[in-house]
Amino acid sequence: MPSPPSFPLPPGSTLGVIGGGQLGRMLAMAAARLGLDTVVLDPDPDCPAGRVARAVITAPYDDSDALLRLAEASDAVTYEFENVPADAVRALEGLGVAVAPGSQALAVAQDRVAEKTFLRTCDISTVPFVAVDSAADIAPALLTLGAPALLKTRRDGYDGRGQVWVADAGEAEAAFARIGAAPAILEQRAPIVRELSVIAARGRDWSVAAYPIGENIHVDGVLRRTMAPASVDDRLAWDARYIARLILEKLDYIGVIGVELFEVRHTPGDATFLYVNEIAPRVHNTGHWTLDGCQVDQFEQHVRAVAGWPLGPTDPLVSVEMTNLLGDEALDWAALAADPAARLWLYGKREVAPGRKMGHVNRLSPLA
Amino acid sequence: MPSPPSFPLPPGSTLGVIGGGQLGRMLAMAAARLGLDTVVLDPDPDCPAGRVARAVITAPYDDSDALLRLAEASDAVTYEFENVPADAVRALEGLGVAVAPGSQALAVAQDRVAEKTFLRTCDISTVPFVAVDSAADIAPALLTLGAPALLKTRRDGYDGRGQVWVADAGEAEAAFARIGAAPAILEQRAPIVRELSVIAARGRDWSVAAYPIGENIHVDGVLRRTMAPASVDDRLAWDARYIARLILEKLDYIGVIGVELFEVRHTPGDATFLYVNEIAPRVHNTGHWTLDGCQVDQFEQHVRAVAGWPLGPTDPLVSVEMTNLLGDEALDWAALAADPAARLWLYGKREVAPGRKMGHVNRLSPLA
Repeated sequence: MPSPPSFPLPPGSTLGVIGGGQLGRMLAMAAARLGLDTVVLDPDPDCPAGRVARAVITAPYDDSDALLRLAEASDAVTYEFENVPADAVRALEGLGVAVAPGSQALAVAQDRVAEKTFLRTCDISTVPFVAVDSAADIAPALLTLGAPALLKTRRDGYDGRGQVWVADAGEAEAAFARIGAAPAILEQRAPIVRELSVIAARGRDWSVAAYPIGENIHVDGVLRRTMAPASVDDRLAWDARYIARLILEKLDYIGVIGVELFEVRHTPGDATFLYVNEIAPRVHNTGHWTLDGCQVDQFEQHVRAVAGWPLGPTDPLVSVEMTNLLGDEALDWAALAADPAARLWLYGKREVAPGRKMGHVNRLSPLA
Repeated sequence: MPSPPSFPLPPGSTLGVIGGGQLGRMLAMAAARLGLDTVVLDPDPDCPAGRVARAVITAPYDDSDALLRLAEASDAVTYEFENVPADAVRALEGLGVAVAPGSQALAVAQDRVAEKTFLRTCDISTVPFVAVDSAADIAPALLTLGAPALLKTRRDGYDGRGQVWVADAGEAEAAFARIGAAPAILEQRAPIVRELSVIAARGRDWSVAAYPIGENIHVDGVLRRTMAPASVDDRLAWDARYIARLILEKLDYIGVIGVELFEVRHTPGDATFLYVNEIAPRVHNTGHWTLDGCQVDQFEQHVRAVAGWPLGPTDPLVSVEMTNLLGDEALDWAALAADPAARLWLYGKREVAPGRKMGHVNRLSPLA
């Protein structure tokens, strides 16, 4: 292992990134802007991030030998997704490797029950939930939560996968089988007004910065569109930033975090408040608008935090509507490139598949 | 050789870049944004551009075998500097390789006499000049041009290298020796009010786009600072765009061009007009302000042009003061990163040397 790094990491240092998809790719591009090199760990030597990185270590994400090689090649290590084994990250930390965000944040974010339990200990509201270990747990949970309720795997779910609605106790067996008969969580149906998110960051100097709130449209569990800055009243904006800061500080977090929020209304009238839906210990799809909407985008912000640099400004320069290009939609690249109001980002993925995130478009307009 | 490419090149295509310095690096990052891969030819396997490219071909720029390998790996080829041999580019063109800008532009830009002769045939003003093949040519040239006059090598000069002022005929021998006794040009001293530049582009659809004029401060022949958009009256702005368009069209040019201008005043009064000082057949240091000042920066614009994509908008979003970080100045990176008004770009160069371009800073302010 190299000697423990001293922060800030100077230009010429190397950032290790576990995962070579589009998030790793945009992290590598942000690092390059600051004169930092990137080494990527990914099973695919031709992965999107690898083609803009100094080197790729080709191995599964949980290959502990490869993780060690990544650590040896790097002055600090981060990851682009939360499904890297927390044990592996804990082992690297034990060897003195500067991994950010740390294994604690990772462990919390990997398990929906641990995540919501953590949020509750922070006095942050979530949808009411019950842990489900077998199909037999579902009927009593429905009595507590009401029906219908949403059954999700505790681990490894993303983009709406591993989720199914349960209308009544009679569907318990089938629903549990449908999500793979894995440890699960049953969540009450929330009275959702809107889906929002806040992208925030905490630096190695413990400073915290949050971007303006985004409003998100999901279709079939996959993010379709983010509008930012969202039109939210001052109280909600303040609450969202407060929630993000609390999570960052309680987890002693370093880096960018994505916090998905539900704006909910329980009673007639205008008053709404915020539930945290989930936390993503990484740069986040709902923060892609910052690439064209802010001086320092979420990727550079993450690199700054992980490398111990000062956080950058988070003020919006323009209003942005970010639209994901899913599957065949990316085939419209030529028309999108010709639209002067559209800023196109393509991820360099070789294969188009239905629903696959191939790129996104930021449409800019003056701040409201 | 691959079959001739059809334009626009789709995402997933590969751009070959001759030269792996900071310009190649920023081209590779711009290409990545659009889903295009980059392969770089450079003698240094650890060159700045190589660390954000899919691959590096390690060879001298004029290695014709390596140029062929680059062409084979690429759907289109471009270069980051004008000192690649025009013959080599002509040979690639002869094989059907899509090189842009083409060998004609390269040949004109490589030779100061050919360049100024070309400009004169376009009815574009330049400083009066005389070709100098030996020290003996200098005395008669001084009679025509007046003294002092500036002696420059015809070829291979950049950043003020290969230039010396000649005060009178008695200095002819020493001056000619000082520039290496190479074929040269003697230029009249221009009544320069300001140094300006225009960065423009021409696409494969023959559309032309120009960014707002920049005002440049050079110190010891090296660019120190660019302010853009420069405060110029409408007539000068129109002239600069007209000049750029004329050059692009006469050279049947594809890609971004940097046109260095002198604003000159010959007579008392306010009237000034423009000389072209030189043309750079590539992205240009005086266009780095576009990285933070425009939706589509000069690097993406060049990639769009070379790949046959539509040109992007060139309107300024903000005013920018671009300052080069030369040598040790880049050691101030931490303070610069902490300044919310400064956008820092570092080039990943391993060695600091006096005067070496290590990075730049764009300072943003609202449009005047």
